Amino acid sequence: MKTWNRPYRNEANAQAPADLLITHCRLVNVLSGEIEEDTDIAICGSQIVGVGHGYHAQRTIDAAGRYVYPGLIDAHIHLESTKLTIPQACRLMARFGTSAVITDPHEIGNVAALDGLAYQMDSAADNGYINVFFVAPSCVPTLTDMSIESAPSALDPDKLRMIAEHEDVVGLGEVMNVPGILLGIPEVIEKIEDYRSRGLVVDGHAPLVSGPALNACIYMGVQSDHESTHLEEAREKLRRGMFVMIREGSSEKNLDELISLVNPHNARRLMFASDDLDPTDMIGRGHINHLVKRAVAAGVDPICALQMATLNPATYFGIGDRLGAIFAGAQADIVIAPDLVEFSPDIVIHEGRVVFDGNLLPAGSPKSIHLRPTMNVRLPALAELAVTAEPGRDARVIDLVPGQILTRQSFIAPLIADGLMLADPSRDIAKVCVFERHRGSGSFGIAFVRGFGIQKGAIGSSVGHDSHNMVVVGTNDADMMRCAEIIRDMGGGQAAVLGQESRTLPLPVAGLMSDKPAEQVIEDEVRLDEFCAKILGVTLSRPMAALSFMALPVIPELRITDQGLFHIAPGGYPQKVGIF
Amino acid sequence: MKTWNRPYRNEANAQAPADLLITHCRLVNVLSGEIEEDTDIAICGSQIVGVGHGYHAQRTIDAAGRYVYPGLIDAHIHLESTKLTIPQACRLMARFGTSAVITDPHEIGNVAALDGLAYQMDSAADNGYINVFFVAPSCVPTLTDMSIESAPSALDPDKLRMIAEHEDVVGLGEVMNVPGILLGIPEVIEKIEDYRSRGLVVDGHAPLVSGPALNACIYMGVQSDHESTHLEEAREKLRRGMFVMIREGSSEKNLDELISLVNPHNARRLMFASDDLDPTDMIGRGHINHLVKRAVAAGVDPICALQMATLNPATYFGIGDRLGAIFAGAQADIVIAPDLVEFSPDIVIHEGRVVFDGNLLPAGSPKSIHLRPTMNVRLPALAELAVTAEPGRDARVIDLVPGQILTRQSFIAPLIADGLMLADPSRDIAKVCVFERHRGSGSFGIAFVRGFGIQKGAIGSSVGHDSHNMVVVGTNDADMMRCAEIIRDMGGGQAAVLGQESRTLPLPVAGLMSDKPAEQVIEDEVRLDEFCAKILGVTLSRPMAALSFMALPVIPELRITDQGLFHIAPGGYPQKVGIF
Repeated sequence: MKTWNRPYRNEANAQAPADLLITHCRLVNVLSGEIEEDTDIAICGSQIVGVGHGYHAQRTIDAAGRYVYPGLIDAHIHLESTKLTIPQACRLMARFGTSAVITDPHEIGNVAALDGLAYQMDSAADNGYINVFFVAPSCVPTLTDMSIESAPSALDPDKLRMIAEHEDVVGLGEVMNVPGILLGIPEVIEKIEDYRSRGLVVDGHAPLVSGPALNACIYMGVQSDHESTHLEEAREKLRRGMFVMIREGSSEKNLDELISLVNPHNARRLMFASDDLDPTDMIGRGHINHLVKRAVAAGVDPICALQMATLNPATYFGIGDRLGAIFAGAQADIVIAPDLVEFSPDIVIHEGRVVFDGNLLPAGSPKSIHLRPTMNVRLPALAELAVTAEPGRDARVIDLVPGQILTRQSFIAPLIADGLMLADPSRDIAKVCVFERHRGSGSFGIAFVRGFGIQKGAIGSSVGHDSHNMVVVGTNDADMMRCAEIIRDMGGGQAAVLGQESRTLPLPVAGLMSDKPAEQVIEDEVRLDEFCAKILGVTLSRPMAALSFMALPVIPELRITDQGLFHIAPGGYPQKVGIF
Repeated sequence: MKTWNRPYRNEANAQAPADLLITHCRLVNVLSGEIEEDTDIAICGSQIVGVGHGYHAQRTIDAAGRYVYPGLIDAHIHLESTKLTIPQACRLMARFGTSAVITDPHEIGNVAALDGLAYQMDSAADNGYINVFFVAPSCVPTLTDMSIESAPSALDPDKLRMIAEHEDVVGLGEVMNVPGILLGIPEVIEKIEDYRSRGLVVDGHAPLVSGPALNACIYMGVQSDHESTHLEEAREKLRRGMFVMIREGSSEKNLDELISLVNPHNARRLMFASDDLDPTDMIGRGHINHLVKRAVAAGVDPICALQMATLNPATYFGIGDRLGAIFAGAQADIVIAPDLVEFSPDIVIHEGRVVFDGNLLPAGSPKSIHLRPTMNVRLPALAELAVTAEPGRDARVIDLVPGQILTRQSFIAPLIADGLMLADPSRDIAKVCVFERHRGSGSFGIAFVRGFGIQKGAIGSSVGHDSHNMVVVGTNDADMMRCAEIIRDMGGGQAAVLGQESRTLPLPVAGLMSDKPAEQVIEDEVRLDEFCAKILGVTLSRPMAALSFMALPVIPELRITDQGLFHIAPGGYPQKVGIF
């Protein structure tokens, strides 16, 4: 954690002029829970030194009666999911009034272990737009059993201790290994104990976990959760002591279901998170300001909603001494907006500097940080993708749940030809393959999935939570294989293929991120999505996001990894199952 | 700070029976902000392991539908002001549902420095009734200038660093040296920086301070205040970022004035404190439960009021990992009460043990902890107490403010006889003397005070915040001198005298505390108060409490020390003034 940094300044006592005075603020005071009319904010360097009246300064910004609130905070995001390098992602988020994010770099942690973390941390430092805080990836690999999936990296308790020493690390990231907690697996417990003993937070990840199992997670030290998909699930977590993050990502949308949980008595225990957010979604809808807007539209008091996006995460993550509210000594992260309906900023100030006033400041010159290539995939022969049918038996398929990353297990009568089970676009059944892509082991798994709406061709991605093996969904083996080859040959990325036609989004940085400016990544992503929708007939919006969660074996109910098909009960270990 | 202590327990996951199950709780859930009907609480040893259903246990307590809430927390108390040793004070408070206090041992810190702190800390440890947390006395002496008052001890930044290492220390106690903050006096700044850098809290003490001076205190790291006596004063502190403690002590009563500040949007930033509380008041009205009751009677939602007495201080002081709410992993500090009106417990559980069920558990055998005697007073000759009048000039008198420790400065026409200014009971004017009592220096100060209602005789005390010189108020010099001699000869304490008659409350422990059981101290205190009221005609209730604040030179507006009479502006240094 960063050390205390408030040099004595007689400007705070108005004995000398401040650097900057923001005048005529209609201050949304998240501390006193009220809107203060006509207040001034005095700033020296990157810090607020006074609020109220009696200050003067060398330079003035007139808020002219507009609303002024603290910079917003995303309580849980994997910045890798923006597909952007951190400076590019931060530049994009800043325009929406975001001043800080807590990121769990477990995508790159899985792919490239400590090298990956160092890459992200170095990229984040002093980016000028947003304070990036880190929670250490608790579950790399996701589960410790390699017969469930091939994982490229491991962050053991010793490595976690090293990570905890970094000044931007505020906690341990989502502990997904719930069965490990329940059974008291020493390595899992040791990581939690170490972080709690240091006074750092421990985030959780307990989809559908309830009752004594939920209590046991809390008892062992898990403090928050962002995986609630049902109102009563979130209510129980809140009652039992968890901080609840309401999440709205590109493929995980829980705000509508959960927002009625919020009331002024409990709002302090609630926050907003985006978890995984495509850049196209972000530019289109906004970032945390979008959740605040939706919450207010759903009836939450605007002050409450802003507390959930500012004071609450700052307090929870132990960074409230400098973030999350407007007070003397806080970092000068300030948003000026015309209303409390759209939460669309006119001006955004970060560390005392205007970073958005209708235009974004240009990005600074990129740092020279490099990461070794990570794609090492040995693809099987085309014939090996064939699935032999078992006559008379139904096939187990993965059912997508619209707007969620949960899946359901369904049984259907398979489409059979020449003794093989085939994809059946007429019933929206596609084939899905996961190819190990880090060590060239050649291992792969095959299953069937319903819900993409894909009518022809194939789509694929080297982003495949959390081990980031390559995931390909398609209607025929040839297009699927070609899709996998394209992704391999471009050194990681996302692709959509139909015969000789294809669209791609190269992600050369660990197979997760582009090295290009945000604008170009968004353009490529839009072209890719359009190809999926118009040429391949994909009906799911943001199909690449859904695709990337097919292989995550800690979220119920049915998942495919490079080791095969697995059934997952809430809080339970994955159980290997067959298609038939 | 205490380290993390949650050994793996399969009882948390209901895989084995717990030790104790509290069934049929009407749980006041301060986390989710609601009352949960019919919930169980499972306890193992001193810890809660689960809440909800699905648990079984070896032993059961049936709450039978009564209200169940977390043990209460006093956010700021000087336990020395109970005049009891800590185990006795804790035993008394436990019956009211208090489970933890944050005490600032600055009374004994002033008298006996580190020896005094060690005495209190050793006395507090494992007392079996209440968790006693300490904030380190920031201002020993109160101010650094010995021409303002003679102070017996000094706790410099090096000593403060030692104190911070103690596992029960959660912060730096009320920083009263506001002028020191405003001027950036290095020693004052260094103490604050050290504690904030460690992640410990820094409590403030800023009566009537506002505007840029208030911002400057907050900027430099002061986080809370318990000295607000006016609603708008408290509102400004809350708005600018301070946590506000609503205080109700024996002579500092602010709840009625401040309680309308509370609303659900800001309640999280508010707490309750008793600061200085006589044992007679405590037994008569209760402890923090009395403030909760009064708040609810004033219209505050009971859940809000209980949050202010539980979750809020636990969160603020960084002890929320184990206190302040009922959740798996928390210490089993639980109150069972029949209603949310009186907040009068039927059963109090501390660390999993029933400490009150209509009867208090007997006190454990006292520890053998000793402190050297501290009374070393050289009294002046009787004639030296005479005050020469200045004909034609009004006299400056200290006016008590009923129910507050603030004083006002007034000017009156003196009663003169033989060229001397005399006390004038007909106008409620008494003489007040402060005698240095630690080093036998013989220094003393004299002034006049209005508001005790004393008609004859004298009252005195070796408790005299914060340097604890001896304070005597009376109508004539002979009784005053005799009162001082009695206090000196009994090695510290409080006395009321009329001619040869007297009543005393001996306080041999540092001149601040009795070594007797609570019941006997209360009996002595009642006798003393009765003597004051019935024999001396004192009209002020709890006159000894008011007496003890006459010499505190950091609270406006007029104070008397052994160095004379001082005028104090809000946030300003004391300025020496004459009676005439």
